[in-house]
Amino acid sequence: MNAEFVNPFITGLLNVLETMAQTTLKPGKPKRKQSEIAKGDVSGLIGMVGPQVKGSLSITFDEELALTIMERMVGERPDTIDGEVGDMVGEVVNMICGNAKRDLSERGFEFGMATPIVVSGKQHTISHQVDGPKLIMPFHSEEGMAHLEICFDK
Amino acid sequence: MNAEFVNPFITGLLNVLETMAQTTLKPGKPKRKQSEIAKGDVSGLIGMVGPQVKGSLSITFDEELALTIMERMVGERPDTIDGEVGDMVGEVVNMICGNAKRDLSERGFEFGMATPIVVSGKQHTISHQVDGPKLIMPFHSEEGMAHLEICFDK
Repeated sequence: MNAEFVNPFITGLLNVLETMAQTTLKPGKPKRKQSEIAKGDVSGLIGMVGPQVKGSLSITFDEELALTIMERMVGERPDTIDGEVGDMVGEVVNMICGNAKRDLSERGFEFGMATPIVVSGKQHTISHQVDGPKLIMPFHSEEGMAHLEICFDK
Repeated sequence: MNAEFVNPFITGLLNVLETMAQTTLKPGKPKRKQSEIAKGDVSGLIGMVGPQVKGSLSITFDEELALTIMERMVGERPDTIDGEVGDMVGEVVNMICGNAKRDLSERGFEFGMATPIVVSGKQHTISHQVDGPKLIMPFHSEEGMAHLEICFDK
């Protein structure tokens, strides 16, 4: 998994949150260890299936950050992670993956996207079950952390 | 989403747990409401992408049931949901989806499977983000509940 492939996802996350929620995330150091796991309170997950590879993508937010993004997008802050926050997270992961898909398709790398799944629950962990490369990228903000994870089966 | 399409997944779950872990699940009443959500302690999720449709599948287990399945498969009961239990859940969802894929392919319905993702966390909820049909199927056992959820975008 090279930078050319991963960058559209990272750029997508930064752009989407900047544009939709005036929220600037600061990228941390990417981690490639199989043992690393993303932890947070609400996650958007999406599967990818292409002729060459298959894989999965997840974005996990701390509750405070998710609520702040929601507040900046709709003008009102929910008390807790509810269905609307979940829908927002599903929409964000869908947009990021969709943008990256278009970008990579132009470079001859094709994949289809499954429908997004949203997971809510205090400090849940996400483990992508792949033998291939795995990248976890932490993002910092004043309101909490986000973790982007991208994995492929080869 | 008709029974012909859903049944291979349901049969798959029952067969896999019966064969691998001598565990008999009792299917409950399927629910089709968009508002229903699956809740549990460990889930296996997988995305599906086909030429006609895309969708997602999840299987969510209560902790007690997941630990019992693990105990019956490997002969030792973990104290809690650890990485090995997660791998087992990922493998179960992969097997069920793989069997259903073969079965449905023989009937002319093709889809590709993304790589599985496992979520761990006390009483997390799963929300499949689709506009199309959604089926949640509860399964009962003495050791706890499992929920199978299958969704497609049309």
